[in-house]
Amino acid sequence: MELKTRILKWSAGVPVAMIGIKTAEAMGVHENDRVSIKKIDSAEPKDFLTVINIADKIVKEGEIGISSEIQESFNLKKNQRVEVNIANSPKSLDYIRKKIDKKELSKKEIKEIINDIVNNSLSEPEIAMFVSGMYENKMTFKETINLIESFVESGEKLSFKGKYIADKHCIGGIPGNRTTPIVVSICAAAGLTFPKTSSKAITSAAGTADVIESIAKIEFSTKELHEIIEKTGAFMIWGGSIELVPADSKIIRIEKMLKIDPHAQLLASIISKKLAVGSKYVLIDIPYGKNAKVDFKQGLELKESFEKYGKYFKLHLKAVLTKGSEPIGNGVGPFLELLDIIKVLNPYEKGPEDLKNRSVFLSGQLLELTKKAKKGEGEKIAEEILKSGKAFNKFQEIISAQKGSIKNISLGKFKKDMLAKSTGEINGINNKKINMLARVAGCPTDKASGLYIHHHVGKKVKKGDKILTIYSESKPRLLEAIKYYNKEKPIEISK
Amino acid sequence: MELKTRILKWSAGVPVAMIGIKTAEAMGVHENDRVSIKKIDSAEPKDFLTVINIADKIVKEGEIGISSEIQESFNLKKNQRVEVNIANSPKSLDYIRKKIDKKELSKKEIKEIINDIVNNSLSEPEIAMFVSGMYENKMTFKETINLIESFVESGEKLSFKGKYIADKHCIGGIPGNRTTPIVVSICAAAGLTFPKTSSKAITSAAGTADVIESIAKIEFSTKELHEIIEKTGAFMIWGGSIELVPADSKIIRIEKMLKIDPHAQLLASIISKKLAVGSKYVLIDIPYGKNAKVDFKQGLELKESFEKYGKYFKLHLKAVLTKGSEPIGNGVGPFLELLDIIKVLNPYEKGPEDLKNRSVFLSGQLLELTKKAKKGEGEKIAEEILKSGKAFNKFQEIISAQKGSIKNISLGKFKKDMLAKSTGEINGINNKKINMLARVAGCPTDKASGLYIHHHVGKKVKKGDKILTIYSESKPRLLEAIKYYNKEKPIEISK
Repeated sequence: MELKTRILKWSAGVPVAMIGIKTAEAMGVHENDRVSIKKIDSAEPKDFLTVINIADKIVKEGEIGISSEIQESFNLKKNQRVEVNIANSPKSLDYIRKKIDKKELSKKEIKEIINDIVNNSLSEPEIAMFVSGMYENKMTFKETINLIESFVESGEKLSFKGKYIADKHCIGGIPGNRTTPIVVSICAAAGLTFPKTSSKAITSAAGTADVIESIAKIEFSTKELHEIIEKTGAFMIWGGSIELVPADSKIIRIEKMLKIDPHAQLLASIISKKLAVGSKYVLIDIPYGKNAKVDFKQGLELKESFEKYGKYFKLHLKAVLTKGSEPIGNGVGPFLELLDIIKVLNPYEKGPEDLKNRSVFLSGQLLELTKKAKKGEGEKIAEEILKSGKAFNKFQEIISAQKGSIKNISLGKFKKDMLAKSTGEINGINNKKINMLARVAGCPTDKASGLYIHHHVGKKVKKGDKILTIYSESKPRLLEAIKYYNKEKPIEISK
Repeated sequence: MELKTRILKWSAGVPVAMIGIKTAEAMGVHENDRVSIKKIDSAEPKDFLTVINIADKIVKEGEIGISSEIQESFNLKKNQRVEVNIANSPKSLDYIRKKIDKKELSKKEIKEIINDIVNNSLSEPEIAMFVSGMYENKMTFKETINLIESFVESGEKLSFKGKYIADKHCIGGIPGNRTTPIVVSICAAAGLTFPKTSSKAITSAAGTADVIESIAKIEFSTKELHEIIEKTGAFMIWGGSIELVPADSKIIRIEKMLKIDPHAQLLASIISKKLAVGSKYVLIDIPYGKNAKVDFKQGLELKESFEKYGKYFKLHLKAVLTKGSEPIGNGVGPFLELLDIIKVLNPYEKGPEDLKNRSVFLSGQLLELTKKAKKGEGEKIAEEILKSGKAFNKFQEIISAQKGSIKNISLGKFKKDMLAKSTGEINGINNKKINMLARVAGCPTDKASGLYIHHHVGKKVKKGDKILTIYSESKPRLLEAIKYYNKEKPIEISK
């Protein structure tokens, strides 16, 4: 049926559209049904699929109300003529069921699932079933290869000049472990080409994309990205923005909700993005330990997996295990982490030692992998670049090329110091609870919210000493965070 | 934060609420977050949980827009003062993850999941993960017992006078297999008390509740239900209506979307409802065969399961296997099935033999189980009751007590006869494709839509003979159905 668009400033977090009661009856559509929207008078061949809401008065009969999510991804104008039709559940739902029936999926089947996620044919509960299926039944080597290839084929590909196109990735889970901006700055200063795409937080308080977004743009056109690389040798952008792997953000959204992160999806998400930006030298950082995403044994398995898939796709890929039993640095949350990063980069300031050492180690590994440093000399060269101020200059150059500045960093309007209730030694900081606490305070959406962790494990404290400060941009969230802190006790003090 | 309600005639299929951009900022709420709504000036202790949409202009700042689903289940008035707060993801999400980690859940954990489904704390993708988990990892005997008990404890319980409280249930999957109204009428005429709750269609074209709803009310208060039983000895209502097992409808909604039906959930859904209405004598009908939900072996396993759980809960429960390789009767869809039922019940008409024989068989089994008939004589007595017109009278009595009438049955405005393309013998009718075809035509929501199957398997037809008629209430749905029919060919003719 032909309808006219009405642009509603309406955001549900997922694409939704709204039609009137009579329009719904005429179309034979019921609420929560799927419909396809096609632009009339447009050469664009692609339909957009969405679930439908039915409402009286909000939209007129003959109109279709468009949510912000659809408008953004499908670029519709107001009063635009569109053809709207009932869409049945896609064939790929059968393949998802096949996976939860513990059967192996073919390349064709995986490709169709991924395409249907991209074009919005699969609903959130259906994607949740796919994620659960991957989590429970694992994916075989062949399935994972096919998942990676389907990811890459479903999106755009970038290609940069230069022999040493490098990349690093951390599997995450450790609050404050924001080495990427430092490693990118050191390596780009050393002459590597570093097209870094990062994700937004899945279960943690912030991802690198959230952190950079707080002071610079993280979404650019392909043309702009080439210009930035030409000028600075590197960028740090949001991987979800350039349609490199468009299925990935949608799957990650569901993983976030379900709080699970299947092995195959983790591997595919990372490797596909490295392939899509044309990286050749890739370092994977796997923090392990109590409260990390993996223990030592699982970390080793993951390292082997990464190197196996890296080899298959002809990458120079190395995975390293790093200790991950407590938060790194002091800040947790976009702005708070940036303050740590700048202190490490700035040769005239003293940043957190643990964050600095880890960044130097990872940079050293990459310099050796690309043969920019001889074996055993990578860390020394990285340290020199940091000391010289070249890395700090490079960082500011990149941020400025991404239309940002490090000048406007402020912290949450509302704050609360949490004090030690007894004298003793800090003998544990729970990563998961710290992440959750920061999220309750408003991370990663509210950039100025987060935590400042005053001490690390092993430090002796006296009763009444500050051990943690919570920042938030909203009073109710601060109160929720204090309640969570008191209940969950993320920092343990022995007597 | 205190907000005032605005009632929106807005239906998304799930509970949703809408607030303005500034209100969202002040609360620190992001789109798709969960909030709790609590009535101020009300003794009602229960919060209602919902996901939030953010919109400009549709609601004023300081207001919360309420969807039809919330209004119905939480009974809110316009301009009502409510306290709205951020709600974090519930503890029960951890238990769901535990299940997909292949671990056994305790009674406490299952109970909390079920309660959180009931009070809306778990979102649809989260429930989808639970359903996938039950499907993939199965539930142990103990878990299933706990699931059944949690279901029963989460809802209301009914209790009727009378020694012979009987019930029947069919696991479904066979189009047109609408024996329930006939069996209920025969057994109630024979003196059994028959408080029948039925579900709406999950994957089929219609459930008994959809069929009865097309001519009578299927939602009543507890008081009204007692009055109907007092008067007629039976009722046929929608199980989802009386909050007997409120979690069940929400889980079934997701199963419908995912098109899976886990074993434990199937057992728990059925047995919990029999327990909640106080049934003592229960007959379970398990159709098996090609294109049925189960094959013979799976049917036997299911029979054993049902009888095992029945025994645990001290029910006189018998499960029978019936052939289910093709549709029963001629009609598929609410009104079309009713026409078949009335023809079987009315002693002056001739209804489909297969539907009649099956109904007599099941009635006979129940009469023997309750000792209303001697072993081997149940069918004879059932047949006599049918012939005498007593069952037809009883049926009309029940429908009239449920404020309905059998007079207003009409068929879809749009119809299309599908003709045999060649001369030959019908050698297969695919249940799943027939169900899907009827759904495409508008079933179960559009009562007058559906299919008339002119012949059964084994019948010889000539080229040009009518083999199927499609009815629909909307032109686009009819066209979609014709397209589906031509593509999927649900009826096979051998040459």
